[in-house]
Amino acid sequence: MTNYFRTPIQIRFNDIDGMGHVNNAIYHEYFDLARVEYFHRVLGEVVDRHENGLIIASVKVDFLAPVFLSDRISVVTRVVKLRNKSLEMVQQIVAENETEPRARNSSVMVCFDYKKNCPVEIPADWRKKFQDFEGLED
Amino acid sequence: MTNYFRTPIQIRFNDIDGMGHVNNAIYHEYFDLARVEYFHRVLGEVVDRHENGLIIASVKVDFLAPVFLSDRISVVTRVVKLRNKSLEMVQQIVAENETEPRARNSSVMVCFDYKKNCPVEIPADWRKKFQDFEGLED
Amino acid sequence: MTNYFRTPIQIRFNDIDGMGHVNNAIYHEYFDLARVEYFHRVLGEVVDRHENGLIIASVKVDFLAPVFLSDRISVVTRVVKLRNKSLEMVQQIVAENETEPRARNSSVMVCFDYKKNCPVEIPADWRKKFQDFEGLED
Amino acid sequence: MTNYFRTPIQIRFNDIDGMGHVNNAIYHEYFDLARVEYFHRVLGEVVDRHENGLIIASVKVDFLAPVFLSDRISVVTRVVKLRNKSLEMVQQIVAENETEPRARNSSVMVCFDYKKNCPVEIPADWRKKFQDFEGLED
Repeated sequence: MTNYFRTPIQIRFNDIDGMGHVNNAIYHEYFDLARVEYFHRVLGEVVDRHENGLIIASVKVDFLAPVFLSDRISVVTRVVKLRNKSLEMVQQIVAENETEPRARNSSVMVCFDYKKNCPVEIPADWRKKFQDFEGLED
Repeated sequence: MTNYFRTPIQIRFNDIDGMGHVNNAIYHEYFDLARVEYFHRVLGEVVDRHENGLIIASVKVDFLAPVFLSDRISVVTRVVKLRNKSLEMVQQIVAENETEPRARNSSVMVCFDYKKNCPVEIPADWRKKFQDFEGLED
Repeated sequence: MTNYFRTPIQIRFNDIDGMGHVNNAIYHEYFDLARVEYFHRVLGEVVDRHENGLIIASVKVDFLAPVFLSDRISVVTRVVKLRNKSLEMVQQIVAENETEPRARNSSVMVCFDYKKNCPVEIPADWRKKFQDFEGLED
Repeated sequence: MTNYFRTPIQIRFNDIDGMGHVNNAIYHEYFDLARVEYFHRVLGEVVDRHENGLIIASVKVDFLAPVFLSDRISVVTRVVKLRNKSLEMVQQIVAENETEPRARNSSVMVCFDYKKNCPVEIPADWRKKFQDFEGLED
């Protein structure tokens, strides 16, 4: 891995649920916003719905330890595998000065043509940018 | 008042914040969804962004008593005043079998032309529908 | 499967994101609220944080088709496997009159003792209730 | 006014609703998190529910201009008036390099004793801290 793309998260008061820690559904908002920033950083454009986009096909999250309002956390985002029409992304929620993540996310994102309404190959320039950023082999 | 438009609310687990009751920001999601249903019912169409719409210009909420996960609540929605380019809406969050509301909302909505990007007069047919539904004078 | 526990979902205006359909993070709010209702129905009590509880250890969601504001959807919830200290739950988001789900969720929930702060065996009476409700073998 | 307490806001992808800008209900999450930070900064402690707290009694928001995902915004928070058992807070959402706010919030917060479950006088040391921070007269 050549890059660690890290997005500090601003926890909101109402991210905390009746259990006293960040609600599990909110984690996905964190992963989402980090994903958008990652694509913006690596692809140099905001991926939007008017042309090709990357849509989330599946996501798996392991909740390892709770997150509290006073925690200082970041999301670390990486693309770990590029397929023909999809990619695999790994994200972790990590707290300051900790090595073990609080949560781990593995997702599959599909390249989608919004006009044709179907999956398409990842554009060559996007593929190149992901490979360069992540140090992935062709 | 000729009609009480009542929208039962499905409270979500994560509407509850660290204080143990529905977070004050969530009330606005309830008011919002009830507002959309009200317009759909009264105007017979979904107000969307492609033509004229009603956008919220200001809102005032009084929080009178907390709402808990086990409460059964509804939002009661009324338009109480029609002006030239705006209307005044009153909403209340009421719990089953209670007369005093848990929260009271007064908002001003402006009729907006999305193409011209400016406020416009409330269309005559909308005005008529509001008047008929609410029993308001011209 | 002997029971289909079905929770109709009230979609909120702001569940819709900039893509025009229900945001993927919001699906988890739907799964969550259905989970709480399921436990309340099957165990006959609200699972809360003051004693034993069931906490979510991992979740996998497949997003199969988008959900729109005008869709009428439910979450179908089942417990499909009981282990010693955990259970496996399967949930689906299904739209009215459709057979294919819009999303599929598989989660592992761990029985947790909030006082001892560690996983514990699923209480015998809970186990019995899950088995009876779902027609699961011992 | 002696201090401008400013809280930069991290906008999340799903803060944007189907209209293409930050949903009005989300503004209240921004105001909320800024309020918590303000109290933490001025009172030097996290206001929690186990003792005295400040609860929101009413809020009025004027929505002046929409906020978009790419905007860089902050919430500016001030206490403008101290009463016996309550205070008046003014908050604004301001975008980078702009003078006119995108939204303006005026709220009344009541000092509340969670054990007695009733409003109480603002503690003398809190009153002093607010006065010092904001340059308010006794």
